[in-house]
Amino acid sequence: MAKVLTPQNDDFPRWYQELVAKAELADNGPVKGQQVIRPTGFALWERMVSEMDDRIKETGAENASFPLLIPQSYLSREAEHVEGFAPECWTVTHAGGKELEEPVVVRPTSETVIGEYMAKWVQSYRDLPLLLNQWCNVMRYEMRTRLFLRSSEFLWQEGHTAHATRDDAAGYNRRILHEVYQDFMENVVALPVLTGLKTAAERFAGAINTFACEAMMRDGKALQMGTCHELGQNFAKAFDIQYLGNDGQQHHAWTTSWGTSTRMIGGLIMGHGDDNGLRVPPRLAPVQAYVMTVKDGEGVGETAAKTHAALRAAGVRSKLDTRGDVPFGRRAVDAELKGYPVRVEIGPRDVAAGKVTLVRRVAGTKTPVPIDGVTEAIAEALETDQKALYDESLAFRASHTTDVSTLDEAIEAAGAGFARLAWDACGVDGETKAAERGVTVRCLQRADGSVPDDLDEPDLVATLSRSY
Amino acid sequence: MAKVLTPQNDDFPRWYQELVAKAELADNGPVKGQQVIRPTGFALWERMVSEMDDRIKETGAENASFPLLIPQSYLSREAEHVEGFAPECWTVTHAGGKELEEPVVVRPTSETVIGEYMAKWVQSYRDLPLLLNQWCNVMRYEMRTRLFLRSSEFLWQEGHTAHATRDDAAGYNRRILHEVYQDFMENVVALPVLTGLKTAAERFAGAINTFACEAMMRDGKALQMGTCHELGQNFAKAFDIQYLGNDGQQHHAWTTSWGTSTRMIGGLIMGHGDDNGLRVPPRLAPVQAYVMTVKDGEGVGETAAKTHAALRAAGVRSKLDTRGDVPFGRRAVDAELKGYPVRVEIGPRDVAAGKVTLVRRVAGTKTPVPIDGVTEAIAEALETDQKALYDESLAFRASHTTDVSTLDEAIEAAGAGFARLAWDACGVDGETKAAERGVTVRCLQRADGSVPDDLDEPDLVATLSRSY
Repeated sequence: MAKVLTPQNDDFPRWYQELVAKAELADNGPVKGQQVIRPTGFALWERMVSEMDDRIKETGAENASFPLLIPQSYLSREAEHVEGFAPECWTVTHAGGKELEEPVVVRPTSETVIGEYMAKWVQSYRDLPLLLNQWCNVMRYEMRTRLFLRSSEFLWQEGHTAHATRDDAAGYNRRILHEVYQDFMENVVALPVLTGLKTAAERFAGAINTFACEAMMRDGKALQMGTCHELGQNFAKAFDIQYLGNDGQQHHAWTTSWGTSTRMIGGLIMGHGDDNGLRVPPRLAPVQAYVMTVKDGEGVGETAAKTHAALRAAGVRSKLDTRGDVPFGRRAVDAELKGYPVRVEIGPRDVAAGKVTLVRRVAGTKTPVPIDGVTEAIAEALETDQKALYDESLAFRASHTTDVSTLDEAIEAAGAGFARLAWDACGVDGETKAAERGVTVRCLQRADGSVPDDLDEPDLVATLSRSY
Repeated sequence: MAKVLTPQNDDFPRWYQELVAKAELADNGPVKGQQVIRPTGFALWERMVSEMDDRIKETGAENASFPLLIPQSYLSREAEHVEGFAPECWTVTHAGGKELEEPVVVRPTSETVIGEYMAKWVQSYRDLPLLLNQWCNVMRYEMRTRLFLRSSEFLWQEGHTAHATRDDAAGYNRRILHEVYQDFMENVVALPVLTGLKTAAERFAGAINTFACEAMMRDGKALQMGTCHELGQNFAKAFDIQYLGNDGQQHHAWTTSWGTSTRMIGGLIMGHGDDNGLRVPPRLAPVQAYVMTVKDGEGVGETAAKTHAALRAAGVRSKLDTRGDVPFGRRAVDAELKGYPVRVEIGPRDVAAGKVTLVRRVAGTKTPVPIDGVTEAIAEALETDQKALYDESLAFRASHTTDVSTLDEAIEAAGAGFARLAWDACGVDGETKAAERGVTVRCLQRADGSVPDDLDEPDLVATLSRSY
C-alpha cells in the first residue's frame, strides 16, 4: 500500500497533523486555537463519553449543567486559582448591544461557580457527599495550539464533589483516579497509565494535591490523560460551603475536582497510531467491523448486507460500505487511516468460494474466513486485538523506561522515554533545572508504583520525561 | 397531602416557578438569564438526548462539534440572519489579557460557521447529502428570562444538512419534523403536537420555510417545542457551498437546519404537571420506579433491595430510597414533586402481609400488590400510564381548541386555548393585529391537519393562541 502519511520516525508531529486531517478527525476553527471535531473524530469522543459516564455514575455522581459564563469576581475569591487561570481567560464584555456591568469570563473550569451553588445546596451532613459531574466545553487562551492536544476550546467532563471529611474526599478522589480514569484508559483505550502525585509546581491552581494519569506516546513523550484534585477546604472557605454536623456545629466541607477531555483523543492517536493511520482499540471503536464490497458481482451486495446484519445482531458495531463509485483501493486506505479494528472485504471471488476476507488492523493479517463463521471469527479477533494493543503499549513503555540515579542521567534518558529517579535525588531544584531542558516531573509514586497520599511521604520516585 | 405548590388555577406562572425550585430541577445562574440545571432536571435532559439522538442517527445524520465562538464577520454574510441575531449576541472582546483583533460572538446558532466548513467538505455530488448534528450550548441575550423556557444560555441540538436538490432538502427536513421531533414528543414525552408551517413573520432569520411542532400547555398557551428550517440556497450562496454535479457543472447546495432544546423540559413541566408536582411519562422517566421504605422493620430493607434489583433486572429504571433519617412523608411529597411514574412503598405491615404498596402518579391510585407480582404490575402500569398521559393531553387540547371564522373570534378564543381560523380570514394584517393583543399564529396547516409545502398553498388554516 502506498504511504499516505509521513512516517512517524521521520517527523512525528507532521505524521500526527497529517493523520488528523486525512482520517477526517478534526479541523482548525476560524478563531485562534478553536477546533472543529468532525464526525469520525466525534464518534470516538461519544464512545469515550459513554464508557466514562457509566463509570462516573457507578461511583454515585450525578450529571448537572452549570453556566458557561462566570463573573470575574468569582474567580478572584480563591487567590491561587485566579492567579492560575485569569491570564488564560476569554472575556465577554458586551451583550444585547450594551456593555455589561461586570465583565464575565468563559469558564476555564468551574470550581468557582459550582462552589457558589454547593454553598446553597449543602446545609447538613445529610447532604454530603454531594457528587456532581458535567460534560461541557471550556476555554483557555493558548499561544501555541494543536488539535485535540492543546486547543483554546475543548470538550471535557469536570467532576466536583463536597465531603464531610478530608478522608472521605481523598477516598472518593482516589476511586475516580483508579476505578474511572485508570480503568477506562487501560481497559477501553488500551493505554497503560502511570498514576501518581503531581509536584507542587505541577499542581492545579487552588488544590492541595493533584493526582494524574500519564500515558506514554509512541515518540516516548508523556501525555497527561486526566487529573484529580484534592481541593482541601480552599474553595469551601472561599465560597462558604458549610454544613451542620451531627455534632451540632458548622463545618467547612472538603471538596475535590477531576477532569478528562478531548485531549484523550490525541492520546489515542499518538499512543496507538502507526504509519498507516489510527488504530482504534476494539472496545472503544465506534466502528468495530467495516464490511465493504470489493467490486460488484453476483451475490456480493447481498452477502455484505447479510454479514453486516449478522454482526449487528451479535452486538458488533458494524458499518456497511457498498459504494460502487469510489475505488476499492481508496476505501481500503481510508479504513486503515481511520483504524477500524477489522475490515471484511467481500468480492465476487470470495462469494463464489463461500468465504470473505478478514483484515485485522492490529494483527496486520488478511485471511479468508467461511461466510458462516465470520461473526465468531470477528468476535474473537476483537477480543484478541484489544489485548494485543494493550500488551504492545505496555511493552513499548517498559522498553522506553530507564531507572537512573542522577538528574543528568534522567535528562539524558528522557530523550527517549521515561526516566525514573528518586525524588530525593531530584527535588524542587532539580525539577526547575530539568524544566529548562524541556523535561518535567510527570508524577511521583511510591517505590512499588502505588500512589502516595501526599508530598511528605519519604522515598518517592519521580518519573521524568518530555511531554505534550 | 398538604399543598406544597400554589395551585395551577390560582397562579400558573407561580406554580411553574415553585415546581422548578421544589422539585430541584433548576436554579438561576449568577449571570443574567443563565441557568443551573440540577441533577433531577438534567436527568430528564439526558433521557431526551438519548431518545432524540437515536432517532437523529436513524435518519443518517452524524454528530460533530463546531466552535463556540464565531467571528462577527461570518454572521454578516447572510443579510437576514445577521439582522435577526446580531442584537441577541454575547460578544467576546478580550482573551489572554489582550484585545482581540476582531470581536467574536458566542454562537446564538451555528449556520454560519458550519456553512464555512460545509463549503470546504462538499466538493462533489458524492459528498451529498451531508447530514450533521451537534449537541451543544448556545447563547442569546434575553430581557425577560424564565428557567428552561427562555434563558440566555440553553442546551440544544442543532442539525445542519446540505443537499443536491431542493426536493431532497425538503424531504429530509420533513423526516426530521415527523420521524424525529413529532415521534419523540408524542410517543416519549406524551405531548401531542401540531406540526405546521410558520408565517413569514415567525420564520427563522435566513430561511425560506420554517416548520414547527407546537404543544398546548395546561394553561391553554402554546409552546414551540422544535423547529425545522429550509434555508434554500441562502447560506450556500453566502458561504459558497458548491458541488460538482454529475452533469459536470458547479451547483450551489440546498441546506436545512433544525433544533430542539432544554425548552422541552419546560414543555414537559407545563404540559403534564399538576398541583402536586411534575408527572413524567414512563418512557421518558429517568426514574420509572421509586422503591422506598416507609420505616424500619423486619425484612423491610431486604424486601426493598430485592424489589429494586428485580425491577432493574427487568429493565425498569428503578431508584432505591432506604433513608431512615428523612421522614417518610417528606420523601413521599418529594417523589410526587419529581413525578416518578410509580412509587413502591414498603413498610413492616406490607412485608408481614407479603405485599407492597404501589402508588401510581398518573392514575392516582394506591394499591397493595403481592411481592412476587410487583415487576409485572409495574411494567403494566408504566405502559398504561404512558398512554393515559398522552390521551389526557390530547383530550385537553381538543377541549381547548375552537374553530372560528373571524379574527375577533380567534383573539377571543385564544384566551382559553387554540383558535383555528382560515388563513385567508387572518392574513398578514390580521396577524399583526392579533400580535398587539398577545396572540400569535402558531402555525399553518392544510384543512386536514397535514403540513403545507409553502405559504403559497391555498386554503390554509391558521392556529392562533397565546404562547411562551
